[in-house]
Amino acid sequence: MSLRLEVLNTGSELLLGSVRDAHLSWLGRELFPLGLRIARQTTVPDGAPIRDALLEAFARTDVIIVTGGLGPTTDDITRELAAELLGRKMLPHPETLERIQERCRRRGFSFQPRMERQAMAPQGATVLPNDNGTAPGLYLPAVEGISWSSPHLFLLPGPPRELQPMAVAHVLPVLKELAKRHSGGGTQECRIYKVVGMGESMVEVKIGLELSKRGDLEVGYCARPNEVDFRLIGPREILDQVEPSVLAVVGDYLVSGDEKSMEEIVVHLLGQKGATLATAESCTGGHLVNRLTNVPGASKVFLEGFVTYSNRSKSDLLGVPADLISTHGAVSEEVVRAMAEGALRKSGATFALATTGIAGPDGGTPEKPVGTVWLALARDGCEPEVWKETIPADRITFKQVVTQSALDRLRKRLKALTNS
Amino acid sequence: MSLRLEVLNTGSELLLGSVRDAHLSWLGRELFPLGLRIARQTTVPDGAPIRDALLEAFARTDVIIVTGGLGPTTDDITRELAAELLGRKMLPHPETLERIQERCRRRGFSFQPRMERQAMAPQGATVLPNDNGTAPGLYLPAVEGISWSSPHLFLLPGPPRELQPMAVAHVLPVLKELAKRHSGGGTQECRIYKVVGMGESMVEVKIGLELSKRGDLEVGYCARPNEVDFRLIGPREILDQVEPSVLAVVGDYLVSGDEKSMEEIVVHLLGQKGATLATAESCTGGHLVNRLTNVPGASKVFLEGFVTYSNRSKSDLLGVPADLISTHGAVSEEVVRAMAEGALRKSGATFALATTGIAGPDGGTPEKPVGTVWLALARDGCEPEVWKETIPADRITFKQVVTQSALDRLRKRLKALTNS
Repeated sequence: MSLRLEVLNTGSELLLGSVRDAHLSWLGRELFPLGLRIARQTTVPDGAPIRDALLEAFARTDVIIVTGGLGPTTDDITRELAAELLGRKMLPHPETLERIQERCRRRGFSFQPRMERQAMAPQGATVLPNDNGTAPGLYLPAVEGISWSSPHLFLLPGPPRELQPMAVAHVLPVLKELAKRHSGGGTQECRIYKVVGMGESMVEVKIGLELSKRGDLEVGYCARPNEVDFRLIGPREILDQVEPSVLAVVGDYLVSGDEKSMEEIVVHLLGQKGATLATAESCTGGHLVNRLTNVPGASKVFLEGFVTYSNRSKSDLLGVPADLISTHGAVSEEVVRAMAEGALRKSGATFALATTGIAGPDGGTPEKPVGTVWLALARDGCEPEVWKETIPADRITFKQVVTQSALDRLRKRLKALTNS
Repeated sequence: MSLRLEVLNTGSELLLGSVRDAHLSWLGRELFPLGLRIARQTTVPDGAPIRDALLEAFARTDVIIVTGGLGPTTDDITRELAAELLGRKMLPHPETLERIQERCRRRGFSFQPRMERQAMAPQGATVLPNDNGTAPGLYLPAVEGISWSSPHLFLLPGPPRELQPMAVAHVLPVLKELAKRHSGGGTQECRIYKVVGMGESMVEVKIGLELSKRGDLEVGYCARPNEVDFRLIGPREILDQVEPSVLAVVGDYLVSGDEKSMEEIVVHLLGQKGATLATAESCTGGHLVNRLTNVPGASKVFLEGFVTYSNRSKSDLLGVPADLISTHGAVSEEVVRAMAEGALRKSGATFALATTGIAGPDGGTPEKPVGTVWLALARDGCEPEVWKETIPADRITFKQVVTQSALDRLRKRLKALTNS
């Protein structure tokens, strides 16, 4: 029987919406390759509801990962609550106390006596050192023969940059061992085919239904802005076996056959082809360049990015003639072409991408409503590709969809280069 | 007694980590002003676990908002499951069918017969039209006198850009009415004081503990990269009454006394002071300009942004002397100062911010390890402020912390202008 694992996020700020959870997606991705899937995730506010949620999960699951509530303030009670539920005493952990005091010295903060709470641990717990904050994590292994079911319990700090390195060093290795001991057969693999330009119904009709009928694959779909993620989970040999039929159907629309993001694919393809890139953005305001530079190694292929929000900057930095802007408007086929050509000329890059549009909420007109955007992809010695889209959405989604379209166009162009 | 509300997110992609939930934080923020708080949020995979989670929540809560599982594919079963649990027949909804067919025509997709499932609704449900996708939402009001407790049930589509406009138009107004009918007293207000440069223990010792003792305020803390969010929830008059003591303690460290983000504050202050801004980024790769342009109205104060990833672009675009780079290195006090001055000169803006550093994971040296970053804030006629930080973190966190530091310096400078 495979191990059942749940995640419990604590923190009123998550339910108030002040902070967006980052743990579930990170943990989900890290656990899958170990043969583990998160069966359920729950978020509760600080305080008593943590106890209810823990007790419910105790009765249902083999492993619980709790995030948050390990800080020094009075609303941080996860540590004490877990000890109480398991009937364990809290004991001081001198090594942790020293670590916290040292950290305060190093960062120039004064040590507060109430930080001592963070250096207490339930009896029998393994203390997981925190290299990026004060609160250590705690691991309370399941105890055989306890009167009521007690799962393996991991208490981890709330900030992602503390939790993630700690989990990598001290939690995932333990879970890997536990999973091995429990798992009956081989582990499963997950393949996600990212498809742009084909709806999810179509993907299902053309290939998904047939694969569902096999019974040895889990088939799933997720519609995202300008993208459908077609998901297959199963043993590697089965996935390899069906992959040719998947590619035969979605091949032309396929962005990626794995979990790589569009920007990772583009940076990788640029490197592969020895090509470089520059960007000239108006309406996307740096979202395009920010996506590209999120990819480690981007500096090898990305030369420079212009965010020309004002008309004057389009002329000064990219050499877009001022009369072109006054005649056609900043959001026009003519201007986006001149922006891309200007970025190409200024940077000496192989390719340049340009965007100009109306992100809203203001600035729309009847002829050019909010959501109108022109895009261009230029390459030295070639006529630029110029295209228009209309994406009525909030400002953030607008940026995401527009940059997705820009990157996809470049991706196709680079792939064609590979094949020639 | 106040209304208890829970959110149930469905979708295997959320638990696998392929997609990061955006609903909880959005709903939390939208519901609070109506006097509603989310008591618990649960994520379950597609399929049978939805039934278990729904049944558990039925017994516990007054309102359930379910997201996802309304699509056209076979893993989308929320609609049918809810009907089955409530003992309702599924009936065709011709208006929705027409809407979907019209949408396909408009977008150039071919209508698939299986989309017809999306035009079925449980008997007694209110159909909530979807202006941004095919699947309509559904509202199943609580029925008085039913043998087992049945809460108000809202089924909403998974994609945020479909869910959000639908919720604003058709869900929040209903919940507002329900909240009014149930609420005993007045609504509460939430104030978040964003504090930079003071640890959470210190905030608690200096003011939080005292406020907790009052008993009429809910006090909370959330540590974020380079920021502590100090949260007070209570009736407005109490919040007004204690605010002076809060400001007396955290005033110098206060970034914002409401939920505004750092970038919103900076854009607002720039506008207020009639000042403009340009940016020159190396290691933050457009993250700074992207944050600024996420704010509606940024185009009024933001002129242009340079992302100068290569050394050559630092010289060509910003006029950084090549020998300065070869003598001191691209990550140096001298180069960041020249970048900021160059951006100021080129743009004619009032202020310019510049960053250069080593985001990693590669590129570090013993003298300049990964995480080293130089920042500069320039203003015409003044000596630029230049400062160094060391932020060993993953690439994304690094960008977030560095741009937070840059914006905070500008914010302080702008606030000082206001007071002069």
